Amino acid sequence: MLGIKEIGIYIPVGREPNHDKKEKWGIDDTFLRDKIGVDRHAFRDPGEEATDMGYKAFQHLASKIDIDRTKVEVLVFVTQNPDERMPHAGTILHEKIGLPYTCASFDIPLGCSGFMYGLSVITGFMKENGMTRGLLITADPYTKCVNPEDKNTSLLFGDGATATYITDDPVLVPGKYVFGNLSEKWREIKLVDNWLYMNGPAVVKFVAKYVPENVRRTLEKNNLKKEEIDRWIMHQASRFMHKVISENLDISPDKMPWDCRDYGNTVSSSIPLLLEKELHNKQHKHYFICGFGIGLSWGSSVLRRV
Amino acid sequence: MLGIKEIGIYIPVGREPNHDKKEKWGIDDTFLRDKIGVDRHAFRDPGEEATDMGYKAFQHLASKIDIDRTKVEVLVFVTQNPDERMPHAGTILHEKIGLPYTCASFDIPLGCSGFMYGLSVITGFMKENGMTRGLLITADPYTKCVNPEDKNTSLLFGDGATATYITDDPVLVPGKYVFGNLSEKWREIKLVDNWLYMNGPAVVKFVAKYVPENVRRTLEKNNLKKEEIDRWIMHQASRFMHKVISENLDISPDKMPWDCRDYGNTVSSSIPLLLEKELHNKQHKHYFICGFGIGLSWGSSVLRRV
Repeated sequence: MLGIKEIGIYIPVGREPNHDKKEKWGIDDTFLRDKIGVDRHAFRDPGEEATDMGYKAFQHLASKIDIDRTKVEVLVFVTQNPDERMPHAGTILHEKIGLPYTCASFDIPLGCSGFMYGLSVITGFMKENGMTRGLLITADPYTKCVNPEDKNTSLLFGDGATATYITDDPVLVPGKYVFGNLSEKWREIKLVDNWLYMNGPAVVKFVAKYVPENVRRTLEKNNLKKEEIDRWIMHQASRFMHKVISENLDISPDKMPWDCRDYGNTVSSSIPLLLEKELHNKQHKHYFICGFGIGLSWGSSVLRRV
Repeated sequence: MLGIKEIGIYIPVGREPNHDKKEKWGIDDTFLRDKIGVDRHAFRDPGEEATDMGYKAFQHLASKIDIDRTKVEVLVFVTQNPDERMPHAGTILHEKIGLPYTCASFDIPLGCSGFMYGLSVITGFMKENGMTRGLLITADPYTKCVNPEDKNTSLLFGDGATATYITDDPVLVPGKYVFGNLSEKWREIKLVDNWLYMNGPAVVKFVAKYVPENVRRTLEKNNLKKEEIDRWIMHQASRFMHKVISENLDISPDKMPWDCRDYGNTVSSSIPLLLEKELHNKQHKHYFICGFGIGLSWGSSVLRRV
């Protein structure tokens, strides 16, 4: 039985406040609070690359739990902003952590669904290869590709990283997943001239239609009722999208935390950043986890406390 | 039991002969024949992207076997030269093939070890998610990043793509894998100013030391003797490296085909390009498969005929 043993996180100390941008974008406090939900974005240090951020998340993980680096068997690195176009960033992080040459590594270039895909891929790969110790690291310096002059994206995204230790002695174990990929809409979130373009209304429409359906299918597949979920750990896209989902599914906001006011939408790191706070909260038995975004791509599962 | 059901391939018709470059690089026929092993490189059409190549390989696959596209559950796309930096190329190919939104997709940005990682990742992901139909597509327009003015790389690489159909009714089934990642040497193959840089002598040294050791460990893990392998399907790196491996392991060249004289080193497509020729050859029961290169990264397994 493989699952999540421990999680380390890294949010850069640098912050950029959204409140300074109110006049520029003609927006007010209500809009920032209720539609965006982000007061300040986390900004990486100048020159800080994806693997630097991932390494800091690993250091936090290693400060919480003893990890024998010589026994780690696989490193899966989720990022859309790798240090280099080639080779894969996973090998650069592999060197920084000091993993042995017997430890496999590969990248998964996904955004807001990246942790969900990553978790299923790494556990599947570990089972397929009889492995018991793996690292799933998410790190995306999105401020590299967010244009400060774009109102649609510059109010939302922040930099962050996480390191999840997967072992055969887990605290939380994933159940069955449901994945999706609405490829006909891939043009709604993409790079244009190296800057992130996002068609906000199209993305909201997608989220309102596909995420609740995906949640229902995931619960069904896991034989769980909505009421049995203690905490809903949803990707922190925007406050408005978060509300659309909780209202559609009739879930109390108390059970579906909005956590990123101080650091922003950290893409593939949003879910493990929240899970890190919950990991040792024994009051909660079942978590629903769900990521969705660029691709358009999404994935859900549940986590059960062992 | 998941494994390889059928393989489609695509090699662009465009060719560039190496023999025209003899004077320019001060090389002769013996060097081209015995050290490089490539007479002509396959070149993609102008503007042909990774997903265009992958789609053509899929079309070839679909001409050989009936594939109900509505029932494909996952597409894994291996490329280091995706169409766009974001989103992942898998979703663009997902749209071209016309896969349903219930079909998951993700990319793995690896080079010459990419098919090996991809095969283990897709089967692991499928088992983890109870899936029975998947597509593993490799497509790398390496001529995008090979500098025609670089002797070290311009004599070797060509463009190619493959589409492998993974089902629960397979022809060849993978055994146990051995993966490796010598991250301290990642700088030996990387992009410099958007062109591929390769430290040839360092790569040969790596191959001579790590690939034979990896082969021996893989045989051992699968309880197979060298003599039980009918065909050795090794990544087609260069004729010289191929010979280093066959001599080190004392394997007859008859059993270890060198096949890419007419199209070049196609990176992650080299192994499935050879497997496609062998797939329905019932005389051969056991194949050894091995990919190695950028990362530095490698992986091996065996395939058994059902």
